[in-house]
Amino acid sequence: MIKLVALVRRKAGMDPADFRDCRLDVHAPLAAAIPGMRSDRINIARAPADKPAAPCDGSADIRFDDRAGMAAGHVSAQGAIGGDDTAQFAERVEFPVTEEHVIPPAGAAR
Amino acid sequence: MIKLVALVRRKAGMDPADFRDCRLDVHAPLAAAIPGMRSDRINIARAPADKPAAPCDGSADIRFDDRAGMAAGHVSAQGAIGGDDTAQFAERVEFPVTEEHVIPPAGAAR
Repeated sequence: MIKLVALVRRKAGMDPADFRDCRLDVHAPLAAAIPGMRSDRINIARAPADKPAAPCDGSADIRFDDRAGMAAGHVSAQGAIGGDDTAQFAERVEFPVTEEHVIPPAGAAR
Repeated sequence: MIKLVALVRRKAGMDPADFRDCRLDVHAPLAAAIPGMRSDRINIARAPADKPAAPCDGSADIRFDDRAGMAAGHVSAQGAIGGDDTAQFAERVEFPVTEEHVIPPAGAAR
């Protein structure tokens, strides 16, 4: 499994509620249609007052089986549509490619 | 459920393999001991060449039941220990507080 983390800064002047709606109502179904996409966890920053210095207004964790699957999704027609859609809500998006390790709370069943 | 996203830049000059080991072998068990922590997904950037401009070398998604639980974990003794430990590997950590929406691939059972 490989995981693309998208760090998303909302468009300058965009209302946070509009940013949320664009991501959940419009962008999420476009991302869900990308071949090979296994899951997409969309994280939306709560009140900006929570962390005014945070470098992004949200992030997303997008899983693919492997690097080849991620590349194929990226160059697919659906990948291009999803990529173009980010201009509707994002000032900037950065994409570290990561490996994921899930850590349960201490004492939990493993 | 509330989710703290940690965006982590590794210490200047630190080897990426050491950064990975510090987070998984030392920091993860400290974080797992924080009261109220429900899960911690640690994301470690793969080859820096993947995205040289990415603003972080890794991230973590840390879940708590609610804002009160998150605050209680933060001020606990274990929270202080975990917080202090970040200085061993991180040049900078930023923490947007987010709501999470899980999007399955199109066509998957919901």
